[in-house]
Amino acid sequence: MRILGLDPGLRNTGWGIIDAVDNRLRHVADGVIRPDASAALSERLVQLHDAIMAVIAEYGPDEAAVEETFVNMNPASTLKLGQARGVVMLVPAKAGLPVGEYAATLVKQSVVGTGRAAKEQVGMMVKTLLPGCLAATPDAADALAVAICHAHHRGTQQRLARAVAR
Amino acid sequence: MRILGLDPGLRNTGWGIIDAVDNRLRHVADGVIRPDASAALSERLVQLHDAIMAVIAEYGPDEAAVEETFVNMNPASTLKLGQARGVVMLVPAKAGLPVGEYAATLVKQSVVGTGRAAKEQVGMMVKTLLPGCLAATPDAADALAVAICHAHHRGTQQRLARAVAR
Repeated sequence: MRILGLDPGLRNTGWGIIDAVDNRLRHVADGVIRPDASAALSERLVQLHDAIMAVIAEYGPDEAAVEETFVNMNPASTLKLGQARGVVMLVPAKAGLPVGEYAATLVKQSVVGTGRAAKEQVGMMVKTLLPGCLAATPDAADALAVAICHAHHRGTQQRLARAVAR
Repeated sequence: MRILGLDPGLRNTGWGIIDAVDNRLRHVADGVIRPDASAALSERLVQLHDAIMAVIAEYGPDEAAVEETFVNMNPASTLKLGQARGVVMLVPAKAGLPVGEYAATLVKQSVVGTGRAAKEQVGMMVKTLLPGCLAATPDAADALAVAICHAHHRGTQQRLARAVAR
């Protein structure tokens, strides 16, 4: 089971790929997508779309997971983040991958053990849980954390979806 | 010059197609896209994407215009709207169309003559400016209004972009 984790943002979208086999996790790759900030919004969204497509084409993940966005900030920032997040959710779904969504607190809890962990703690624990991983930037570390969270919770989420569908 | 106007929303995305020839406008088609509200967010965004793609494929617009979103509401709604808007901006840009963005007040001013017009006034003026148009719903009327605004302002916007690029 190969998982693509995504931490959406219009300036920086982090991504991380892990393999989860029998409860063991392995780091595959991570990175950050930075659309050209001087380009028009529509063009930035196209760059984000194409970059995520390229990651999916290169690494062939089976499922994707996206962090549920924290909206307690100014409305203009929330709108920008929403626009990036719409594209970040769309691309793996268009590619036929199931897309899980996880609250930031659950992601932190899965990785650090508490929902109130600082960003640095998340990065440190991601490196501990995924030996050999550099997690080049905090956004990439967050994306790997979402992927780890999905590895832990995907069974539960799918059972829940089946139960609701009944 | 065929213009696609779009009024984004996760529940209802209005769209409208007009032809603009020598300052004369002609109504071509309009409608509303309503993704399945009971589906997962990623699936709703895919439905929105596919429906806009289908409109572009059927009517072959040359340019697109999207209303700049009003963000003075609760953050969760702003985020949802942003996600829909990200996809609404992406699809025509991916199809190679220039995508204009217009503030709601400018759209109203272009159509009604004042930036503070009520939604019903916009609908009535759209029907007056585009004889034969039914503008089935308020969202479709808003989308046609954005297209009309783009027909009036696209020259200005392009001159501005060229001036900024120098």
